[in-house]
Amino acid sequence: MSRPVTLFTGQWADLPIAELAPKAKSFGYGGLELACWGDHFDVAAALADPGYVTARRELLKDHELGCWAISNHLVGQAVCDPVDGRHRAILPPEIWGDGDPEGVRRRAAERMMDTARAAAAFGVTIVNGFTGSAIWSQLYSFPPNDFQTIDAGYDDFAERWGPIIDVFDQEGVRFGLEVHPTEIAYDFVTTRRALAAIDRRPGFGINFDPSHLVPQFLDPAAFLDEFGERIYHVHVKDSRRTLDGRRSILGSHLNFGERERGWDFVSPGHGDVDFESILRALNRIGYQGPLSVEWEDAGMDREWGATDAARFVRERDFAPSAVVFDEAFARP
Amino acid sequence: MSRPVTLFTGQWADLPIAELAPKAKSFGYGGLELACWGDHFDVAAALADPGYVTARRELLKDHELGCWAISNHLVGQAVCDPVDGRHRAILPPEIWGDGDPEGVRRRAAERMMDTARAAAAFGVTIVNGFTGSAIWSQLYSFPPNDFQTIDAGYDDFAERWGPIIDVFDQEGVRFGLEVHPTEIAYDFVTTRRALAAIDRRPGFGINFDPSHLVPQFLDPAAFLDEFGERIYHVHVKDSRRTLDGRRSILGSHLNFGERERGWDFVSPGHGDVDFESILRALNRIGYQGPLSVEWEDAGMDREWGATDAARFVRERDFAPSAVVFDEAFARP
Amino acid sequence: MSRPVTLFTGQWADLPIAELAPKAKSFGYGGLELACWGDHFDVAAALADPGYVTARRELLKDHELGCWAISNHLVGQAVCDPVDGRHRAILPPEIWGDGDPEGVRRRAAERMMDTARAAAAFGVTIVNGFTGSAIWSQLYSFPPNDFQTIDAGYDDFAERWGPIIDVFDQEGVRFGLEVHPTEIAYDFVTTRRALAAIDRRPGFGINFDPSHLVPQFLDPAAFLDEFGERIYHVHVKDSRRTLDGRRSILGSHLNFGERERGWDFVSPGHGDVDFESILRALNRIGYQGPLSVEWEDAGMDREWGATDAARFVRERDFAPSAVVFDEAFARP
Amino acid sequence: MSRPVTLFTGQWADLPIAELAPKAKSFGYGGLELACWGDHFDVAAALADPGYVTARRELLKDHELGCWAISNHLVGQAVCDPVDGRHRAILPPEIWGDGDPEGVRRRAAERMMDTARAAAAFGVTIVNGFTGSAIWSQLYSFPPNDFQTIDAGYDDFAERWGPIIDVFDQEGVRFGLEVHPTEIAYDFVTTRRALAAIDRRPGFGINFDPSHLVPQFLDPAAFLDEFGERIYHVHVKDSRRTLDGRRSILGSHLNFGERERGWDFVSPGHGDVDFESILRALNRIGYQGPLSVEWEDAGMDREWGATDAARFVRERDFAPSAVVFDEAFARP
Amino acid sequence: MSRPVTLFTGQWADLPIAELAPKAKSFGYGGLELACWGDHFDVAAALADPGYVTARRELLKDHELGCWAISNHLVGQAVCDPVDGRHRAILPPEIWGDGDPEGVRRRAAERMMDTARAAAAFGVTIVNGFTGSAIWSQLYSFPPNDFQTIDAGYDDFAERWGPIIDVFDQEGVRFGLEVHPTEIAYDFVTTRRALAAIDRRPGFGINFDPSHLVPQFLDPAAFLDEFGERIYHVHVKDSRRTLDGRRSILGSHLNFGERERGWDFVSPGHGDVDFESILRALNRIGYQGPLSVEWEDAGMDREWGATDAARFVRERDFAPSAVVFDEAFARP
Amino acid sequence: MSRPVTLFTGQWADLPIAELAPKAKSFGYGGLELACWGDHFDVAAALADPGYVTARRELLKDHELGCWAISNHLVGQAVCDPVDGRHRAILPPEIWGDGDPEGVRRRAAERMMDTARAAAAFGVTIVNGFTGSAIWSQLYSFPPNDFQTIDAGYDDFAERWGPIIDVFDQEGVRFGLEVHPTEIAYDFVTTRRALAAIDRRPGFGINFDPSHLVPQFLDPAAFLDEFGERIYHVHVKDSRRTLDGRRSILGSHLNFGERERGWDFVSPGHGDVDFESILRALNRIGYQGPLSVEWEDAGMDREWGATDAARFVRERDFAPSAVVFDEAFARP
Repeated sequence: MSRPVTLFTGQWADLPIAELAPKAKSFGYGGLELACWGDHFDVAAALADPGYVTARRELLKDHELGCWAISNHLVGQAVCDPVDGRHRAILPPEIWGDGDPEGVRRRAAERMMDTARAAAAFGVTIVNGFTGSAIWSQLYSFPPNDFQTIDAGYDDFAERWGPIIDVFDQEGVRFGLEVHPTEIAYDFVTTRRALAAIDRRPGFGINFDPSHLVPQFLDPAAFLDEFGERIYHVHVKDSRRTLDGRRSILGSHLNFGERERGWDFVSPGHGDVDFESILRALNRIGYQGPLSVEWEDAGMDREWGATDAARFVRERDFAPSAVVFDEAFARP
Repeated sequence: MSRPVTLFTGQWADLPIAELAPKAKSFGYGGLELACWGDHFDVAAALADPGYVTARRELLKDHELGCWAISNHLVGQAVCDPVDGRHRAILPPEIWGDGDPEGVRRRAAERMMDTARAAAAFGVTIVNGFTGSAIWSQLYSFPPNDFQTIDAGYDDFAERWGPIIDVFDQEGVRFGLEVHPTEIAYDFVTTRRALAAIDRRPGFGINFDPSHLVPQFLDPAAFLDEFGERIYHVHVKDSRRTLDGRRSILGSHLNFGERERGWDFVSPGHGDVDFESILRALNRIGYQGPLSVEWEDAGMDREWGATDAARFVRERDFAPSAVVFDEAFARP
Repeated sequence: MSRPVTLFTGQWADLPIAELAPKAKSFGYGGLELACWGDHFDVAAALADPGYVTARRELLKDHELGCWAISNHLVGQAVCDPVDGRHRAILPPEIWGDGDPEGVRRRAAERMMDTARAAAAFGVTIVNGFTGSAIWSQLYSFPPNDFQTIDAGYDDFAERWGPIIDVFDQEGVRFGLEVHPTEIAYDFVTTRRALAAIDRRPGFGINFDPSHLVPQFLDPAAFLDEFGERIYHVHVKDSRRTLDGRRSILGSHLNFGERERGWDFVSPGHGDVDFESILRALNRIGYQGPLSVEWEDAGMDREWGATDAARFVRERDFAPSAVVFDEAFARP
Repeated sequence: MSRPVTLFTGQWADLPIAELAPKAKSFGYGGLELACWGDHFDVAAALADPGYVTARRELLKDHELGCWAISNHLVGQAVCDPVDGRHRAILPPEIWGDGDPEGVRRRAAERMMDTARAAAAFGVTIVNGFTGSAIWSQLYSFPPNDFQTIDAGYDDFAERWGPIIDVFDQEGVRFGLEVHPTEIAYDFVTTRRALAAIDRRPGFGINFDPSHLVPQFLDPAAFLDEFGERIYHVHVKDSRRTLDGRRSILGSHLNFGERERGWDFVSPGHGDVDFESILRALNRIGYQGPLSVEWEDAGMDREWGATDAARFVRERDFAPSAVVFDEAFARP
Repeated sequence: MSRPVTLFTGQWADLPIAELAPKAKSFGYGGLELACWGDHFDVAAALADPGYVTARRELLKDHELGCWAISNHLVGQAVCDPVDGRHRAILPPEIWGDGDPEGVRRRAAERMMDTARAAAAFGVTIVNGFTGSAIWSQLYSFPPNDFQTIDAGYDDFAERWGPIIDVFDQEGVRFGLEVHPTEIAYDFVTTRRALAAIDRRPGFGINFDPSHLVPQFLDPAAFLDEFGERIYHVHVKDSRRTLDGRRSILGSHLNFGERERGWDFVSPGHGDVDFESILRALNRIGYQGPLSVEWEDAGMDREWGATDAARFVRERDFAPSAVVFDEAFARP
Repeated sequence: MSRPVTLFTGQWADLPIAELAPKAKSFGYGGLELACWGDHFDVAAALADPGYVTARRELLKDHELGCWAISNHLVGQAVCDPVDGRHRAILPPEIWGDGDPEGVRRRAAERMMDTARAAAAFGVTIVNGFTGSAIWSQLYSFPPNDFQTIDAGYDDFAERWGPIIDVFDQEGVRFGLEVHPTEIAYDFVTTRRALAAIDRRPGFGINFDPSHLVPQFLDPAAFLDEFGERIYHVHVKDSRRTLDGRRSILGSHLNFGERERGWDFVSPGHGDVDFESILRALNRIGYQGPLSVEWEDAGMDREWGATDAARFVRERDFAPSAVVFDEAFARP
């Protein structure tokens, strides 16, 4: 057995998909996880024009590439967030509109419903993305939090995403939240609370990405063991801590890639993520979907890196045992 | 030589100062760092009534307690913060007023100027406190920060605190920012930027507190070595990481004291702070001011703990070497 | 608050209780956990002679010593064990009898019932001890275990101890198994299984002793968190790993105290046990019973050590917080 | 130089040798270490029928496979063990016979003598295997061991294996005990004692396997340095500790492959064994025999794994230095 | 981009260059860093005979090998050292002469000037080498150092190397000191002092070699960050600590390759050097010169090792990022 | 049992012994280890004037101080060293004489013989000190050592110290070399070689001092186990590594006490020495002599520190077990 090894196109949105697809093939990938930005996958077009999804499939097929998931992180982020100028830079103009926060949130929620519909039309059953969070900005409890506000944040999430997941259910598509700082769930505790808030309904699950867990000193394999039945998609991404007593784990208000940061994203295999443990855990929980490389490394040429990453994943993607070997040993 | 060992009264504001003072003496302290809330030190009263500061001094003297610094964290926090309901809970009503954010920030700034005046009237030369921060909430750069906004945050700090420090200079008092998450400076990088923003003017320095650095994996002794000339006051406070792969270093939106947190504050000597290295560094930089216990531990009886902490500090407060001992050895 | 600090008398059975009691007082203890061997506490005598328990209480009272638990490890061990010559050396002759294993096991079970009766007569509600195990000897699965045998071992335990616990329930006494290698439960997994086997009935709980967990690389505080409601008594005992690449964690068939062992028992505070975490966990679960020093250290004079241990425990026995301190801080 | 890379067939006994041989070749192996069970190598047939060993050699030759050792762990285990039902499952019926323990032990000893004779007939000079142990079950000294019993266990080993090694000596074959829990030697201390018990006679040596040492926190390279002259054969096998504070190093009565175990066997290179240090030590002691992969990993497809393991070994099998390089540097 | 991967010929001086060149090509190298000893590069001949350098270039060209640097460690060592018999073994006879220390030092200095001239004639702009040190032997301050002597050692270095670097400047060649124990600079502190002593003139820089830093517990990537503008050449070499409590980090007066040493040189990738961090730092500082393997490993066949090392370097030599990837992500 | 706790006077030679003695008593010491410099113990006077040693004993007695050893490190250092100006600063003028190295070495050797005679006259049986070393300066083998020179260094030591130890034997006194960098023995390997060079004669042993072993990453308790029968005296001294990636373990030509050093001496209990393991090892080898504090800490007031050190030692000086406690446990 080997799982599909795909490339998430989000970090390559500066390239048209027609240019990226043959590159990805040449890097060693067997498929793409299409981002719903750049010209990679246009949700509105997919719903408006039946020919659009057919053309996309053809393009992939021409390069012998599969597609098992599409992703809409940027719009999803706006669903629960207190919206500000930063969102304008990442949202389609029709979602931003006049920028009134509640209006933005509502339009973003509707676009996420459309994303489920477009996914179904395109023939994939997984949409990955972000949720945003009304409470992230209260991360550190000073001035002391009123913890009822925290409770209200989970409620807000459930209220906004419940109707979205209704559409996912109707379309036979599932949503995978990439557990990540700035989202409603970013660690074990908040994932437990978010899943509980939405009544653990099957339409809402997780796009597992270990690179966001390791800087928090979390154990990604333990995360898979605990949330196994809600792991719908897997990102292969790495991060690296460079703590030396003078660099903070909190980021120092520095951009990714700056030398004085205490951690950063790196190409898979170049960081602290223990992929051995993760692959064992994926085998344990029976995950058979794509291993999708989300390539991000501010210190490395991206084409060198994407090629290196495809090789890295293929060398480590082992199947679980088919036999109970002790029995072989026990019977002479 | 031994430095004064004082108790910061901020965490004891539920007790009137007349009740707390004899307790502190019995716990083993030689002085108090008075908080400008509760009934411990009233800035407005100190300026309005010349008898107030005399009475405070008398009360301390009656219990053989000294005072080398007062602290006004709660009002200081409002100077740069985007103000919300959490501030209302910690501000005096006359500072909160109608709650309009910019009005709150301006009134808070004026109160900090008054705090310098009150300190001078009371006869202390150090005011500790917080600054707040316009940019803390953009801690994690997603949606991607516009880093000009970050630059603007430091500028905003300098603009608001410059006039405050003018008053401090006039009064012969210095301000010690407690470097701390949610403030304009919380680690090495941001302290460098904040000091630069305010032109490294001597009126603005640091209230060193290692408990906020250790959860970020920072080296407190290295902090003292780098910022030695700006260390105006020292808090003795500890924190303890309880990372086990399932608890995040980021806090999980849990209150202090909850079991699933990845770190928490603890009584001095019960956590991860390396006080040996800190005392060596304090000797190196020539710090001779108070060692002020800020006692906070959600898992320990506070009177037991405050007593334990006073003993802990006294046992470790050693003086630097007065002789160059190798010379003694070298001459037979 | 402070918990009683007691000395478990099991390792001092070479001394008559009349000699040991004043020593224990002088070492700094406030009570004894009496062993049901040596002349310390005689179960048969306690049942046969109403004056016996009165005399014991008097003796303790004369030395201002309390007693909250008695312990019968040696007889308990024989209840489930495959009995061999080693048991003869630790059992009373009337329990050993003719040494037929099943007979020994049955007589041991009856004596444990009597121990509950004697405890009730003496006025204590806790009996600590061992259970033995039919399956310990199959620790390493080679030749490969038939895992039905392992299941049967837990069943055997439940069948033998169920009737014993019936008597405990009748007498209002509870049993605390010291989780320990060679017993039916020695780690988290086996404790879960043993408690399940006996239907988690309240009469059967745990005598917590971290010294047996640490050599297995288990986290004693996590053990308290998981099994908190079944923690009936606490042993303060320490162990020390001396792994250097040539010493095995498995013991090498060497006696305790031999230099080439990979771990050994040591006086509290001289080993690897993290008592800070344990005390925080005991506070969390609300344990208010004795902290009972089981003193065992083959490399230290036992009177020096027992004195050092009493001091060690008293210095660290802090109470939980009585106030929610953040509120004090939050109200200016 | 490169050493032969062989596959130990013990874990593949469910496959006939005729099926396994071409597979092994295709996985990348240059030879087989034949197990004396399944249909891989039949000791009785080898002695009874001169054509048997010729046919085995032909079969290997047809697939360009060498053979430098045969192994008889299962029968060897019964020589010293207290025999129980678990042995029945791993012994040939004629060795088990009526199951009377002493009879089983004697028949097993005779079969081991025959194994030496068969090895000689087959043209190999190494037989690997187990010894069993009369004292393993007294691993933890509670009830306290009578250490004379431990001494007697080593004597028993020497008495039973002395006559076996006599036959090995006569046949010009050497025995390699796989140092392993449940055997007379499982660590440094017990290997020292076992070798001493048998008078360090050259016929009795070691089949080095680091996977059994690492879970005990032993240093395999130091083991090679200490016992270098008795290292007759090498297994390449790995193990992985998964200790997280809740999983015991002792096994928890769980089968290999279960998630809650504290350690497990894994494919070479996927665990904690430091093969770099081992290869340097093998070069130091001049070992030039096979590197024989004993493949066992309950979480991995065995064909994927055996292929991965062959590659892993070949990439790391470096020869020692032939020149003293400093001299080259020193002469200008 | 990929940097040239070269082999430093110093450890192969027992082979004529005509024999070594094709070997190096076959090992996988793209060039040679020629040593000025053996017959590899003869400084005197290069200056005396214009055909010499042409012939050397031809020979390299015949094997498709480049050359970007020559190295003269052995002569350089004598410039500042207190000369003794060990230098005789590594110096050309005409430099050693009558062995009078000051005469040797002066002749060595002149030869280093000639080396710059020869490099220019040969068409390379980098000469790597050693400086020696007048003060290395006072490494441990007992009997207590007169630290004016230490100051004088740096002055002596500056006086002797200033005139040499004058010639380098005239020839357009730069010198790269391999920071190394026994040289004027061997760590961060001494590199700072040595660069200051020679007024940070650009003609004098560093041949970076991490293998000498790691046994001192120094961070090679931090070294690159601090001294980036003076990094003129890079050696890829590794070292391995084998500290076990009985082996000293100081060397024990044992030759390289002896088992009881606490550290030793090893083939790249077989030791403790973190090349990932180094390559990121090289990219940060913009280094684009050769990655030159200085191969030294007393426990490995050198041809196997040199081949393994070339592959190791090529697999890890990644280029920095050409795009600012966040922007791609940010624009939907 | 408790061992004498003494203060080594070497670092206090700026104070007359008459002033130091009452101070030492007040710090908490029970005796002095007198240095043979300053006015503490004058070897020549002790031999010339019979009243001298009586007066010294009286002075000690007046302050209730014992003396079990004298020490002559400074003269001993000159016996094997290549003598230079640094020795002049630490030697008595009559030993330095005209400074001709061989003459200095011979006079130093004679003074060491006299030291044995003076010790005998004074009534102590231990002289501690240094030996110097002809080969220390060849610590790092570049230029490559001729290892015959190293061998010759051990021979030189044996030739020079053999006659000295003859006198020690005659006087019934033993010499304790403080194993230390710059001496003939500074780690395990060199101690083995030095003891072998001098034929392991009992007159030559070790003054154990862990502070010199820990910066080399050596295990002091293992040192005691290996050289137990040659441990004649014990220094209690500590050292602290401050490695941060930029500070070298080699010292950087910086004086003790400078901030950029990678390690330094510190007051006992303030560094990395594991005294728990050392005390267990001292008990194992049966050492019952003094625990002599050699106090040296460039960052601490020496009177505060010497007092703290005496307390530190007394709290940890436990006796070995007098009973075999398991037997007590085993007998019910």
